Amino acid sequence: MGEQITYSLSEAIEESTTDIPLCYFTKEAFDIVRETENTAIQKTKIFAQLARLNALYMIAKAGSGHLGSSFSSLDIVSWLYLNVLKSEDRYYSSKGHDSPGLYAVQSALGIIPFDKIHGLRRIDGLPGHPDVNTPGAHTNTGSLGMGVSKAKGFLFADDLSGKHDGRLFVLTGDGELQEGQFWESLVTASRLRNGRLTVIVDHNKIQSDTYVRSVSDLGDLEAKFASFGWDVSRCDGHDYEALEQLLNSQSKDGRPKVIIADTIKGKGVSFMEHTSMKPEQEFYKYHSGAPGQDDYKSAIQELVTDINEKAFILKLKIPNPTDINIEPLTISKNTERMVPAYSEAILNAARSNNKVVALDADLILDTGLIPFKEEFPERFIECGIAEQDMVSQAGTIALAGYIPIVHSFACFLTTRPSEQIYNNCSQGGKVIYVGSLAGVLPGGPGHSHQAVRDIAGMLSMPNMTILEPINAKQVASALSWAVNDSNESVYIRLTSIPYEQTTELSQVSKFIPGQGECVRKGDDLMIICFGPILSFQAMQTAEILADNGIESTILVTPWINRIDTSWLRRILGNLPLVVTLENHFTESGAGSYYVKSMANSGLLKNRKVLTLGVDELPACGSNDEVLAFHGLTANMLASNIIEKHLSQS
Amino acid sequence: MGEQITYSLSEAIEESTTDIPLCYFTKEAFDIVRETENTAIQKTKIFAQLARLNALYMIAKAGSGHLGSSFSSLDIVSWLYLNVLKSEDRYYSSKGHDSPGLYAVQSALGIIPFDKIHGLRRIDGLPGHPDVNTPGAHTNTGSLGMGVSKAKGFLFADDLSGKHDGRLFVLTGDGELQEGQFWESLVTASRLRNGRLTVIVDHNKIQSDTYVRSVSDLGDLEAKFASFGWDVSRCDGHDYEALEQLLNSQSKDGRPKVIIADTIKGKGVSFMEHTSMKPEQEFYKYHSGAPGQDDYKSAIQELVTDINEKAFILKLKIPNPTDINIEPLTISKNTERMVPAYSEAILNAARSNNKVVALDADLILDTGLIPFKEEFPERFIECGIAEQDMVSQAGTIALAGYIPIVHSFACFLTTRPSEQIYNNCSQGGKVIYVGSLAGVLPGGPGHSHQAVRDIAGMLSMPNMTILEPINAKQVASALSWAVNDSNESVYIRLTSIPYEQTTELSQVSKFIPGQGECVRKGDDLMIICFGPILSFQAMQTAEILADNGIESTILVTPWINRIDTSWLRRILGNLPLVVTLENHFTESGAGSYYVKSMANSGLLKNRKVLTLGVDELPACGSNDEVLAFHGLTANMLASNIIEKHLSQS
Repeated sequence: MGEQITYSLSEAIEESTTDIPLCYFTKEAFDIVRETENTAIQKTKIFAQLARLNALYMIAKAGSGHLGSSFSSLDIVSWLYLNVLKSEDRYYSSKGHDSPGLYAVQSALGIIPFDKIHGLRRIDGLPGHPDVNTPGAHTNTGSLGMGVSKAKGFLFADDLSGKHDGRLFVLTGDGELQEGQFWESLVTASRLRNGRLTVIVDHNKIQSDTYVRSVSDLGDLEAKFASFGWDVSRCDGHDYEALEQLLNSQSKDGRPKVIIADTIKGKGVSFMEHTSMKPEQEFYKYHSGAPGQDDYKSAIQELVTDINEKAFILKLKIPNPTDINIEPLTISKNTERMVPAYSEAILNAARSNNKVVALDADLILDTGLIPFKEEFPERFIECGIAEQDMVSQAGTIALAGYIPIVHSFACFLTTRPSEQIYNNCSQGGKVIYVGSLAGVLPGGPGHSHQAVRDIAGMLSMPNMTILEPINAKQVASALSWAVNDSNESVYIRLTSIPYEQTTELSQVSKFIPGQGECVRKGDDLMIICFGPILSFQAMQTAEILADNGIESTILVTPWINRIDTSWLRRILGNLPLVVTLENHFTESGAGSYYVKSMANSGLLKNRKVLTLGVDELPACGSNDEVLAFHGLTANMLASNIIEKHLSQS
Repeated sequence: MGEQITYSLSEAIEESTTDIPLCYFTKEAFDIVRETENTAIQKTKIFAQLARLNALYMIAKAGSGHLGSSFSSLDIVSWLYLNVLKSEDRYYSSKGHDSPGLYAVQSALGIIPFDKIHGLRRIDGLPGHPDVNTPGAHTNTGSLGMGVSKAKGFLFADDLSGKHDGRLFVLTGDGELQEGQFWESLVTASRLRNGRLTVIVDHNKIQSDTYVRSVSDLGDLEAKFASFGWDVSRCDGHDYEALEQLLNSQSKDGRPKVIIADTIKGKGVSFMEHTSMKPEQEFYKYHSGAPGQDDYKSAIQELVTDINEKAFILKLKIPNPTDINIEPLTISKNTERMVPAYSEAILNAARSNNKVVALDADLILDTGLIPFKEEFPERFIECGIAEQDMVSQAGTIALAGYIPIVHSFACFLTTRPSEQIYNNCSQGGKVIYVGSLAGVLPGGPGHSHQAVRDIAGMLSMPNMTILEPINAKQVASALSWAVNDSNESVYIRLTSIPYEQTTELSQVSKFIPGQGECVRKGDDLMIICFGPILSFQAMQTAEILADNGIESTILVTPWINRIDTSWLRRILGNLPLVVTLENHFTESGAGSYYVKSMANSGLLKNRKVLTLGVDELPACGSNDEVLAFHGLTANMLASNIIEKHLSQS
């Protein structure tokens, strides 16, 4: 298996460093730096280091967030905000992953209230990815490749409004350049001659887990941009003199300008810098997720030492960072995780069936594919952040008689390549789609990453079975069924966060097409639940209902769009109320599907119906906050159900 | 208004030339050419011209199909099939629009049964865009930009199977190169070193309606491909010697090869060649759709004369083309069209509201935007075939306070930019999406163009109202409401084919949020209908039901996902059966939405339910054939409803 891998699921897990005190610099520290008489370069160098420490603080406190690219971009972002941006200018990051770094700068400058730094990824704090409801955020980002398109929209609107001044700076990642939309957007942008658009590529060489060059090499990036008609320049993204020169200059004829800024991922803390990776080290450790205690302490020490040295030279007195004790996250006991189970399941599938092929879109850690890649390298394709390309490849691999299994986060997998999945369905050939990070949790990354539309998208694909396992055991059954038994394409929806279990839920093992399993019996109503998180809430809800004299039957089923209606008829009996409960938009999801099917089969006569799930744009926050926001805690579910139980309709 | 425009809606209308006899060359004619002793070039030249005539025949008979790109690519395709392709090689067109030309070649060579040429776009004939169920089709195309991704999938599968020989030739359009997926797919392809992949760009300079350079200029195409690591060459795509040399040669190191073939759209018939367009002529007339009678006759004459001249020189006796009388299409009388009504509506909206902006993705004719562009050029953006880019631009235009209206065919608009639409919804700002060609008709283009998933996609967008007008009057109301009254984004679903009307349907004018209008009253059941085509069928169905003693209430409503439930409760009264009827997949569409909402509101108690619509992959065929295939004719609907009416559940 080669080197020992720590599976740090980037977006999935709230892992904090909170059993030690954390620390941050106050706004005063930043103000002191800004108000000194030193040169812009001297000031910005310290400012950026202060911002690094605060970004680290925010991520450690939140338990997740993107450290590597916050650090790689912070010299650029600091220079822009301190020395370039005028009131009429706009800056945003197209990738948006680097928001902790951006927030550190913006909070230091009073663009966002300073206190917000304590609330990264919390419901009343700062969203995991930029959102227009935060001051200073011009547009929502987090979904990759949209930045230049958005800039063109802004500039077009400006022209209509008669606004002709103000520059627009857009930061992009380098992994992000694998998205087709990015190149799509460059073409008509190249016609612009207003000298207002500058794109800066934060070329930190590492995408999610590993080197860009080994995922999907960018080739001659300068030649690419030039061939698309852009003005291209390149510099060291940590060299302020070079940044100053390139950011202030404009292209000769006013065409859009791209600056390829060579940066170091994790810049500012020696052991986090990607350049310190050993030659044989495949995976970069600080892309996202909070650092461990030791790493946190060492990083703080290094940053503070460096800041003090710089301050000493400039004769600045910068107050020490402020220590703060954080309440540790409560970690539940009976938790289980699906992704490791999936890792095992796909290994087993591949061992017993040599037609199995796996495709990944730059999320090999999060989708659990490292063991597969190591054991079956010839049956693995790393496609990079290129979901459309990945899905169309899978389609012809299937036509050739193989069984491709396609992986990404559910939010991307089922939406970016929607037309490509349909094209695959239209031509036959079995493709298995596995979407992790499904549902409204984790709540920290925000709506770009919260997959609550994936069922809707997949329901509209002809000949597609949708499965949402209830526990790790059922992950194995679902994949085995998809590979060995299903005659059509299959979408498997996986929960990525650790979830709590009850004994009943952990024992569910039935896997018969169209049928679920009753994990509790009661005469007043049935709750049909999908997925582990809300099934657990349903079990607790049933207890609350029982305390109120209402007895629930709880049916859990992995079959989102396949129902054995004669079986369901028997199970339903005379229950007067059916509640569906899904970790997905109720507008169009499992609940709609069940209700429509039951209505067509005459199963709703003399029964009341209540479809519960996510009813609005997902909130960003801690997992508990997000469940509460959407009314999905046991208490809120129970009161909703009681109201329905007592109602006339 | 400049020159007189003929609105030839490319995919929407079955307009045939069938009141004059048509003609085609038999297989024997092709065989004679192939079996002669002349040079490959001499033979292929005549063969390609015979194929052009047969392609013209197929399109004229079908009443639609892509003439311009069939003709521009036919020298390449003929040369490939006659002189290059070996049994282990594969060829397919990524754009797929040029299928009539391809079929002409394949039928001449016996790859597909020759008789199939009489059935282009018919249910048992040849699909409008390539489909794997046709012999010789390797993959489904018609959705743009997927060709290279698919090639990589084939080559990967070959490697696993131990197949290392056989070349893969993929033809692309030039407009197609605007799709992001194309550039996305080039990156990892550039790693290949097996010498097996050749892409040929049919660079005919014209996309749907006009010059590529004026839609979204491709820039230095050679430099672009080279910067993406491909081996690039370029030639005249009608010069057989050049084609021979480039198609037979390989790149030095086995990397993928792209041949930019400069071609003439409409090549082979002088007045159809784009090079014959007048300098001031903006729109090319022969992209798609059957030619008019005069054009047809002149084209045949030119082709036959040229063939005879060539045959005379080679001393070949080629039989004259076979004349065939075709039954004229029956054109219904009371037809109406929505797109012209929409053209007028958006003009009115823009005249009264200077915030209105229109964006188009290379379908300006089909989406009815020519008058808008002419009157409001500064408020119009032609985005090219770049739907993701278009939608993200619209998002920031909306954030800046304008009202962008985004246009394409429904099948593309709601799927290719699915993630971008969601991103727009997440950041607020009202964007209006207008999808034409919605539903299963026209049936000719095939499943890539039949939008039966668009409602499902849009139902999963937060804060999105979906409207499907019932007639031209309601198109105006819907757009006016969307622009002036709606607080959230709106999707308007338009029928592009001319549709029949009853007096009742043509008089529908009510437009109150969440409410529809009853156009017939009866006590046995209610049919809730969406859109003009199926509402017309429903009216006829009601007559048949009445003949069987069953009296129907028919409710037509443009509100797909907004229901005034108290109003609906009143209308429903004691009707014991509710039928929903939609021009969309029933798995997830208007029917599911209505049933779920009615169930939650207690409106289904003591009522039977039947959700009708499209239940499987749309069939390709004439409109009547397709309706019948999906059980959507009045007779079939009536028998389905009678069965439900009599059933227990």
